[in-house]
Amino acid sequence: MHALKVTRAEDFPEWYQAIVREADLAELSPTRGCMIIKPWGYGIWERIQGELDRRIKAAGCENYYFPMMIPLSFIAKEAEHVDGFAKEMAVVTHHRLKAVDGTLRPDPEAELAEPLILRPTSETIIGDAFSRWIKSYRDLPLMLNQWANIVRWEMRTRMFLRTAEFLWQEGHTAHANQTDAVAETMRALEMYRSFAEEFLALPVVAGEKPENERFPGAVSTFSIEAMMQDGKALQAGTSHYLGTHFAEAQNIRYQDNEGGMTLAHTTSWGVSTRLIGGVIMTHGDDDGLRAPPAIAPRQIVIVPMLRGKPEDVELSAYCAALASDLSALTVFGAPLRAFVDAKDARPADKRWDWVRRGAPIICEIGPRDAAGANVTFIKRNALREGEKVKSHTFSRADFLVQAVALLESTQAELFNEAKARLENNIRDDFASFADLERYFGEDKEGEFKGWARVHWSRPTGAALDAVGERLKALKLTIRNAPLTQPSAFRPCIFSGKPGVEEILIARAY
Amino acid sequence: MHALKVTRAEDFPEWYQAIVREADLAELSPTRGCMIIKPWGYGIWERIQGELDRRIKAAGCENYYFPMMIPLSFIAKEAEHVDGFAKEMAVVTHHRLKAVDGTLRPDPEAELAEPLILRPTSETIIGDAFSRWIKSYRDLPLMLNQWANIVRWEMRTRMFLRTAEFLWQEGHTAHANQTDAVAETMRALEMYRSFAEEFLALPVVAGEKPENERFPGAVSTFSIEAMMQDGKALQAGTSHYLGTHFAEAQNIRYQDNEGGMTLAHTTSWGVSTRLIGGVIMTHGDDDGLRAPPAIAPRQIVIVPMLRGKPEDVELSAYCAALASDLSALTVFGAPLRAFVDAKDARPADKRWDWVRRGAPIICEIGPRDAAGANVTFIKRNALREGEKVKSHTFSRADFLVQAVALLESTQAELFNEAKARLENNIRDDFASFADLERYFGEDKEGEFKGWARVHWSRPTGAALDAVGERLKALKLTIRNAPLTQPSAFRPCIFSGKPGVEEILIARAY
Repeated sequence: MHALKVTRAEDFPEWYQAIVREADLAELSPTRGCMIIKPWGYGIWERIQGELDRRIKAAGCENYYFPMMIPLSFIAKEAEHVDGFAKEMAVVTHHRLKAVDGTLRPDPEAELAEPLILRPTSETIIGDAFSRWIKSYRDLPLMLNQWANIVRWEMRTRMFLRTAEFLWQEGHTAHANQTDAVAETMRALEMYRSFAEEFLALPVVAGEKPENERFPGAVSTFSIEAMMQDGKALQAGTSHYLGTHFAEAQNIRYQDNEGGMTLAHTTSWGVSTRLIGGVIMTHGDDDGLRAPPAIAPRQIVIVPMLRGKPEDVELSAYCAALASDLSALTVFGAPLRAFVDAKDARPADKRWDWVRRGAPIICEIGPRDAAGANVTFIKRNALREGEKVKSHTFSRADFLVQAVALLESTQAELFNEAKARLENNIRDDFASFADLERYFGEDKEGEFKGWARVHWSRPTGAALDAVGERLKALKLTIRNAPLTQPSAFRPCIFSGKPGVEEILIARAY
Repeated sequence: MHALKVTRAEDFPEWYQAIVREADLAELSPTRGCMIIKPWGYGIWERIQGELDRRIKAAGCENYYFPMMIPLSFIAKEAEHVDGFAKEMAVVTHHRLKAVDGTLRPDPEAELAEPLILRPTSETIIGDAFSRWIKSYRDLPLMLNQWANIVRWEMRTRMFLRTAEFLWQEGHTAHANQTDAVAETMRALEMYRSFAEEFLALPVVAGEKPENERFPGAVSTFSIEAMMQDGKALQAGTSHYLGTHFAEAQNIRYQDNEGGMTLAHTTSWGVSTRLIGGVIMTHGDDDGLRAPPAIAPRQIVIVPMLRGKPEDVELSAYCAALASDLSALTVFGAPLRAFVDAKDARPADKRWDWVRRGAPIICEIGPRDAAGANVTFIKRNALREGEKVKSHTFSRADFLVQAVALLESTQAELFNEAKARLENNIRDDFASFADLERYFGEDKEGEFKGWARVHWSRPTGAALDAVGERLKALKLTIRNAPLTQPSAFRPCIFSGKPGVEEILIARAY
């Protein structure tokens, strides 16, 4: 009855793989753990890039490009950073191949004196540049951004969510003091929150990560967390205040007002192609993706019901003129993206292709529509009435008047639907850890559980590790401590001590 | 007397390094052979990307992203391709580091079963995808593009021109037959020619490379060649017709109309950050870069002559309003890029910074300009009259009316200047190889020689190699056989046999 072979209820992970494949977003590549991003998926990434790049530049950051290969000694400079990343880095050791007995191998004579690491993130090589560029307080703040590919060796691959290579943006900034650096960390976090909500229709909770979930080398790490349709959390973006850790390791000092040399405070923040996975698991349904109109590479797709007959000519002209008039409109601050699918294929197949890809509005125009100056269309986010596909017919004039509003309402409806899911599925009625254990310990395979909102005493060190272990047994993790905190706290669910903070607990990707 | 410490006449290679540094375009990184691209350089690349992406999509290509790491066995599939690239590839052999006696090393237990190559180009991994995606003639043409980083191990680095890692775009297409594939090869070549001339103000000669300069595995390779201010040639873009070589190696076959399985014909084409090097060596002068307005990240820069006095407030407001009015204008199909440089530095230093970077129009606004509603500015491409910097004063109203025309005329003047240089410096008065030897053999270090236009019998194989050796002794190479050929030919300059083709010979980057 649905366009995908497997439904969310039947098998959520399988459904996810199906939608990536059937919506033609990406596919696994012959390089282990890496994916090929296809035009519908890459087109979404291009929209994300365009809008985020605009916001990043508006905040005063400039784009740079740093080498992807980082000398091993750089990685070794910051101890925690090494511990955090050393276990999953791709290492370049040779710069030439040689045929030995007819087989190509790394040429032993071309071994590098110092191995090079494919960037798992760029704090080390950018910090080195900071140390050369920053001389005086006049050079601060130094705020830069980079769009780049990243390599982290991953044993279990899940497309868009966890692959050996992925695409991202990484902001890196240096400031004169903690106040400025923390303010920038929070600015980036808020930029991600508003971008996710306004542009991806992805409601999120912004907050601070617990100590044991911090970025390796960070003083504090903040995240935005989104709720997927299986109730799990997806970390959708992070922003780190790095204190003076990297500045110490890399000697990033500036001459202050009084002529002394002072360590800079640095930050870093990033989002990646993982966001596309979040969009899929938030907005997809059993018929495929529902792309939020702001990021849909094609917002209104027109399928002419061609029949290989003479009247096809008139029909094609009608569709082309409609697309042209739609393209002259502006929506979400950019020209409306309309497209006529004139491919040599059955119109019904084309319709379902666009349903699976999740084009927000799909027009099916037959000779009768053309003759009557009408537009028959499907609103993808409200595809069905009961089991039946629901189509609408507007006069051409009305459709042109309504098109922008239809896209805007689709964007808002997708957001509201996801927002309601998030708000209705954070339980805060856990009086004790035993309650939590009961609720999360007894779930059936794939059951929707949502998140827990609990209070705790914010333990550190070994006490925090112990908490982590207890949660791990329930396959749970602490997502973050939301920025918005209550004015009073219940006792710590783990220790019974007075609570000092509210945190979110969930299963996560 | 000039803004750069070294002039083109004194030492062209040193001048090039100086301009890259002084215009703040890029710098060498601690990773051997790699560069850090800085905002002024990356901003030029962003303009190149934006315009070229538009043209590539208009031609019907879609953007994909393929893995950067390619299994070694893929590279080994096409024999000529291996020979061409195997000598300069970065090889990933391990996926983890391990501390041994306190030193981080590649973990011997994490050696990859099959080494991975960092893409020197992507024909092999994209061809593999083609073989899976192309089933029937209905799937053709398949036309895709990728924006990516590329790694080719280079022993001698020159920023933008030759670095171990660089950024590029690579188009890859598959077609049903030779006619269609050759047409696409020529379309891409013409796209590059018009893009270089219209957008980069870079006059070029489009033509076919000789057999010994073909891309490894190509049937024919075409290039656009630009003349630098030292008379050398720069290959600024290439387009390859690959025949069925890669299709055979990777089994790219389609079911044709009659049901038989037929090999596809493929093409590939690319331009890279090398274009920025071409822009520098074409348009730079002894005061720095002169950025063509179409690609200048900032087209009109306004420097307020602030003096730390109360009237600064009014002056700042005047400059901000001017920038705002300029930003509302459209030039080269996009909003005009105006910028107020309010940095805490001496106005004269700021002016010379923008001269070195080559902002097309630099306004210096003092309190008297603000009071009189005037704009005093420098037109960067006509900076001096004799030795003196030449500035103009327009009324504010006139300046706003003229701004677009000033930028357009700058673009045209830069192109015409370079076009005249190209046209006036291709000599065709070489009756024999001895003539060529005399002209190119006797040059002093760094002397401007330009190019030679000669006729030849188009030798192949060993005879061509011999020609190559004779030219190499003069440090010359064959650049290409221009698309526009004469109707009759003089005898071959190398063999005395009847000529069949006109070719360009030059020293090259």
